[in-house]
Amino acid sequence: MKLKRPTLLLDKEKCLHNIQKMKEKADKNGVKFRPHFKTHQSAEVGEWFRDAGVEAITVSSVTMARYFASHGWKDISIAFPVNFAEVDEINELAKTIRLNLLIESMESFIFVEDNIHPKIGIYLKIDAGYQRTGIAVEDHEKILVLILEIMHARHHEFEGLLLHNGNTYHAKSVDEIRQIHTQSMIKIKALKDFLSLHDIVPKISSGDTPSMSILNDFSGIDEIRPGNFVFYDVMQQKLGSCTFGDIAVALACPVVAKNNERNELVIYGGAIHLSKDFITDNDGNRIFGLVVFFDKTGWEEPLENTFVKSLSQEHGIIKTTPELVNKIKIGSFVGILPVHSCLTVHQMREFYSLKNEKITTYLSC
Amino acid sequence: MKLKRPTLLLDKEKCLHNIQKMKEKADKNGVKFRPHFKTHQSAEVGEWFRDAGVEAITVSSVTMARYFASHGWKDISIAFPVNFAEVDEINELAKTIRLNLLIESMESFIFVEDNIHPKIGIYLKIDAGYQRTGIAVEDHEKILVLILEIMHARHHEFEGLLLHNGNTYHAKSVDEIRQIHTQSMIKIKALKDFLSLHDIVPKISSGDTPSMSILNDFSGIDEIRPGNFVFYDVMQQKLGSCTFGDIAVALACPVVAKNNERNELVIYGGAIHLSKDFITDNDGNRIFGLVVFFDKTGWEEPLENTFVKSLSQEHGIIKTTPELVNKIKIGSFVGILPVHSCLTVHQMREFYSLKNEKITTYLSC
Repeated sequence: MKLKRPTLLLDKEKCLHNIQKMKEKADKNGVKFRPHFKTHQSAEVGEWFRDAGVEAITVSSVTMARYFASHGWKDISIAFPVNFAEVDEINELAKTIRLNLLIESMESFIFVEDNIHPKIGIYLKIDAGYQRTGIAVEDHEKILVLILEIMHARHHEFEGLLLHNGNTYHAKSVDEIRQIHTQSMIKIKALKDFLSLHDIVPKISSGDTPSMSILNDFSGIDEIRPGNFVFYDVMQQKLGSCTFGDIAVALACPVVAKNNERNELVIYGGAIHLSKDFITDNDGNRIFGLVVFFDKTGWEEPLENTFVKSLSQEHGIIKTTPELVNKIKIGSFVGILPVHSCLTVHQMREFYSLKNEKITTYLSC
Repeated sequence: MKLKRPTLLLDKEKCLHNIQKMKEKADKNGVKFRPHFKTHQSAEVGEWFRDAGVEAITVSSVTMARYFASHGWKDISIAFPVNFAEVDEINELAKTIRLNLLIESMESFIFVEDNIHPKIGIYLKIDAGYQRTGIAVEDHEKILVLILEIMHARHHEFEGLLLHNGNTYHAKSVDEIRQIHTQSMIKIKALKDFLSLHDIVPKISSGDTPSMSILNDFSGIDEIRPGNFVFYDVMQQKLGSCTFGDIAVALACPVVAKNNERNELVIYGGAIHLSKDFITDNDGNRIFGLVVFFDKTGWEEPLENTFVKSLSQEHGIIKTTPELVNKIKIGSFVGILPVHSCLTVHQMREFYSLKNEKITTYLSC
């Protein structure tokens, strides 16, 4: 392939390996594997999951649910609080597939009960510590009241309790990720003990990539919904979820200028390609991506002492060493391992495999 | 219009006012107005500039240049270091319009000289303090050597020196913006004095929105290229470039959940809609957008003590007051004034006017 401008490359072998590994872990633990498709956003990548035996999926919007339903997926959970304004699309979709929606308030339950007519599944969103959305896991009474309402719904079904321990993304070590998971499961256990007094035994759906990658024991969980693991990224490597060798996407970017005094390279590859997500290294530097060279079979390990230090709309600035700034020529292409692959995929809207096959997503034109 | 999901609304009256004001300022100063179109990215908004008498424009990529050329623009500067890999597209485009490219090194000049065949204009990129790209303004000899090469080019033309004082975006006050501009112009003056000894009188093209909005005197400048001013945003308001009333775009977002204990609203509207750019307030809070109510003619001033405090892929979390968290209902829509309108426009790829007219961009499907 003749590269012309920033192009997202996907290493299919690494991706298949990531899928296989998570599927095996789910099977070994006897939990249902309902991967989140918001990372890859692609019907073709979805088929690789189907080939691995996956039948049920998670998405983050009605738009994405419609796209995957049109590609043959019959069991889809929208892990996002129900958006009342999309009631027509939800009703249409729920006629043709098993659709699970997410609620976290009586207002939302009443809306769904009154306005969604085909039978759907309803998850109740529980906040086990992340403090983004959901009912606080300690609020046993409030949770009980809502579960009872859902269980007595006209014709919808209670699908279980859904949690997302997104606070693992802020952990400073693998041990802290384990602690966050353990603390959350202790609280979930207390909730389940309380609910069992009322003869309610809810299924538990959980799913952040750091916990699902690092833990081997999923006791207390019935279903897992990780998404990012399909490609991983620099943030996950820093968290300890994966190695650099597991990262399955890299943005190929042309070098357009150099500054030998500052040991900097300017690439065509900016916020509109990578997104502005960053991690902070131990010296306090913001890192918007790491840099790799391409070889015949894909790309190498990240270059040492080299990182994307800033992004404008179309520009990226790479800080590197005197040796590399001399070696890398204007007009050559380098690869950028993204900090947050979900957002980079969303920015780019299509990939190319290493064999030059174009892979589209739900937003490809 | 029945809103269903995050939708970017454009107040045409505010936008026309912003265009008119900048055009008048350019005319009054006798400088050429070559607005940057990377903010709006839209042929239709481009026509509003044409109606105001604009004939020459700036873009940030070959892709964008081709789009605007296909919509009748005949004089386009690509204010981005030339990307060798797009040589075919550049040659094609330069056959039909006046195209100006940007270089900052001998390597790039030689590439252009050897590979671009139709006559083009060449700007030399000067770094007057921002330290992103360009030759340091103090490096008189290096600049002279490159100008002489360009002036003796086979058939290309020397278009002038191009600078972008992007460091004004980090200023803490309007006075600091004035100082950055003044310092940069003192250095440019010294460079021009040096070049005049060699009988070279280069045109100066400058263009950051903060300086162009705040200053009234453009002495020493021949051409201005601001872009963001067409819509402005929360970052520009904080810098002092505009008032809240000048901000011409707002993202309409459905409220999907609430947390009364934390005084938080959850909206459908995340990083994929707004981008992850943020400003930091005086208390150290990251602000990803401000919140407005819609009224019959558009939207009101931002709500007090209320801001978007975090963004995930599709979620936004609004921190607000006990009164507002009670008042705002799940299922209603609020408006978000973006922190960085260029990136929000890029994320959304289309707008709707307040009269419900769809406005497309170069990336609309």
